[in-house]
Amino acid sequence: MEIARPYLLFLGDVPDALAAKTAIGIVDWRKDWCLGQVRLEGCAADTGVPDMSIPDGASAGAKTMIIGAVNAGGLLPDRWVASIVEALDAGMDVASGLHAKLGDIPAIKEAADRNGRQLHDVRHNTMTFSTGKGSKRPGKRILAVGTDCSVGKKYTALAMDKAMSSRGYKSSFCATGQTGVFISGRGVALDAVIADFISGAAEWLSPETDEDHWQIVEGQGSMFHPSFAGVTLGLLHGSQPDGFIVCHEPSRTTMRGVDTPLPTIQQVIDATVQSGQLTNPDIRCVGIAVNTSALEDDEALAYLAKVGEQHGLPATDPVRYGMDAIVDKVSAEFGEP
Amino acid sequence: MEIARPYLLFLGDVPDALAAKTAIGIVDWRKDWCLGQVRLEGCAADTGVPDMSIPDGASAGAKTMIIGAVNAGGLLPDRWVASIVEALDAGMDVASGLHAKLGDIPAIKEAADRNGRQLHDVRHNTMTFSTGKGSKRPGKRILAVGTDCSVGKKYTALAMDKAMSSRGYKSSFCATGQTGVFISGRGVALDAVIADFISGAAEWLSPETDEDHWQIVEGQGSMFHPSFAGVTLGLLHGSQPDGFIVCHEPSRTTMRGVDTPLPTIQQVIDATVQSGQLTNPDIRCVGIAVNTSALEDDEALAYLAKVGEQHGLPATDPVRYGMDAIVDKVSAEFGEP
Repeated sequence: MEIARPYLLFLGDVPDALAAKTAIGIVDWRKDWCLGQVRLEGCAADTGVPDMSIPDGASAGAKTMIIGAVNAGGLLPDRWVASIVEALDAGMDVASGLHAKLGDIPAIKEAADRNGRQLHDVRHNTMTFSTGKGSKRPGKRILAVGTDCSVGKKYTALAMDKAMSSRGYKSSFCATGQTGVFISGRGVALDAVIADFISGAAEWLSPETDEDHWQIVEGQGSMFHPSFAGVTLGLLHGSQPDGFIVCHEPSRTTMRGVDTPLPTIQQVIDATVQSGQLTNPDIRCVGIAVNTSALEDDEALAYLAKVGEQHGLPATDPVRYGMDAIVDKVSAEFGEP
Repeated sequence: MEIARPYLLFLGDVPDALAAKTAIGIVDWRKDWCLGQVRLEGCAADTGVPDMSIPDGASAGAKTMIIGAVNAGGLLPDRWVASIVEALDAGMDVASGLHAKLGDIPAIKEAADRNGRQLHDVRHNTMTFSTGKGSKRPGKRILAVGTDCSVGKKYTALAMDKAMSSRGYKSSFCATGQTGVFISGRGVALDAVIADFISGAAEWLSPETDEDHWQIVEGQGSMFHPSFAGVTLGLLHGSQPDGFIVCHEPSRTTMRGVDTPLPTIQQVIDATVQSGQLTNPDIRCVGIAVNTSALEDDEALAYLAKVGEQHGLPATDPVRYGMDAIVDKVSAEFGEP
């Protein structure tokens, strides 16, 4: 799906910043796409962009109102419906990352039809994909992979995209999850695709491009997670990365939500190279991104130095220490921009 | 989905036996579930079970009429609709393996609602699954895997189930594809499940059972097929097999539908053991099933002897030479029934 911009961010009346994390993530990475935020009475979150009414947002040129708030169960509160209808009547599309589908609510469906506007439910997939072809496409790709789910793959890919661009590379971010789709304006929640089309969807989201253009692909799951490894493998085959970054969270002992022990970083490197060679024989690891937030600064630096030396690769915490070390590795392996 | 039996097989007016291969497959493996066949004027296929009218089938006790015919595009011809409505009005459920959904045709939907009957579209999934848990379940499992798609995994699993039963093992067949679902009466077309739930669906279809009960699981795709490997890996993790059989078709040089070269049997064994250990540390290969139909008898036997010796495993063609050699291996590895 392709989401028209600029955005107006709808926060509703969420009780805290955590419930607005989707909107906050969009502002973190794409502040210039966000004209303003709409907050209802009682809203306790603030993304930092100007407060606006829905008509003012429309007048300012907003093309899509993003429901940038979550709540328990992913439901759409009845009290938000009037605002969504107002946005559609004002000529905007509406996009949501909630589990509840916008089009399932009659008032919203009718308003969209009446105004000829689009509803985007990014957690649900309505696109049709081809099955994966497996043939090599022009362009260069880097995939974030992980020792587990929720270890910073999206952040790492976004930080890598930003660092590559600032170093003069042609670079773009390819989203495979819901917040990522808002941040890229295009993409697909890969875990919502029908199983037969995982690698085909991954091919669609990292399509043929210029030979010197780098697509930085958001990862999903882990090859070693018993719930989600199929998604991870289909994404690996479809995105056919030239390089990959292993993301790791050192305080985990078991995989998220299950009793399976965490794999080692080396196991992830080996499995990714072995499986990734099917669609890119030259695949290689270009770095390790560690979430060191549980460690003091000296501990974090010592840990990263140790991990880097063990694997002969740059190791960094993207939040604390940036991605320059991994961009250096890409330059050394694949050439300067 | 669970499909009520016995079945009445609807062949429509298909022009040849190939177009009735679903019905023929059901009769091959579950003849005692099939009370009769319904053939319209011009039908050129014959499954060998008695011809019946729809009312006679209902009177004989048929619980489900199976649309056991395919046509180009998987469409449902208008001229079959009256028969489907007649079956629903006679009190049967109707199950279809066509791409077209039964419930999308108003006359069929209305007849099902009117009679309180179920419509089963086995190519489409409407069930809700949990995500995979990855924890070990009681019971024993054998999975058919392949060097490619369409190399005899379903046939191998069905033949293994039959051979295990005839040797005194408690055994059942677990379906993961549409024809298999008709043959087992339960199952799911795994490639139609939402990606997040592949391994969860595989856990559902090979559930906890007696420790001495063997579930023989139909395989899907190949770990080395760039279109479908995600489905294959999710099935491997979810079915947590104790043993697996590698299925192979020696005349292939590239994977079905793509340009990717075929892996070796050893590569498939190694990759299946390596990935399968995540949910079953004791996973092992118990045999090799080869489709030797392109070879003369002496060539086939020589080929099987060579492949068996190379890998230190029993190698057979299930169609030509049965599965006893692989059941012997299971007995040696896991004990007599």
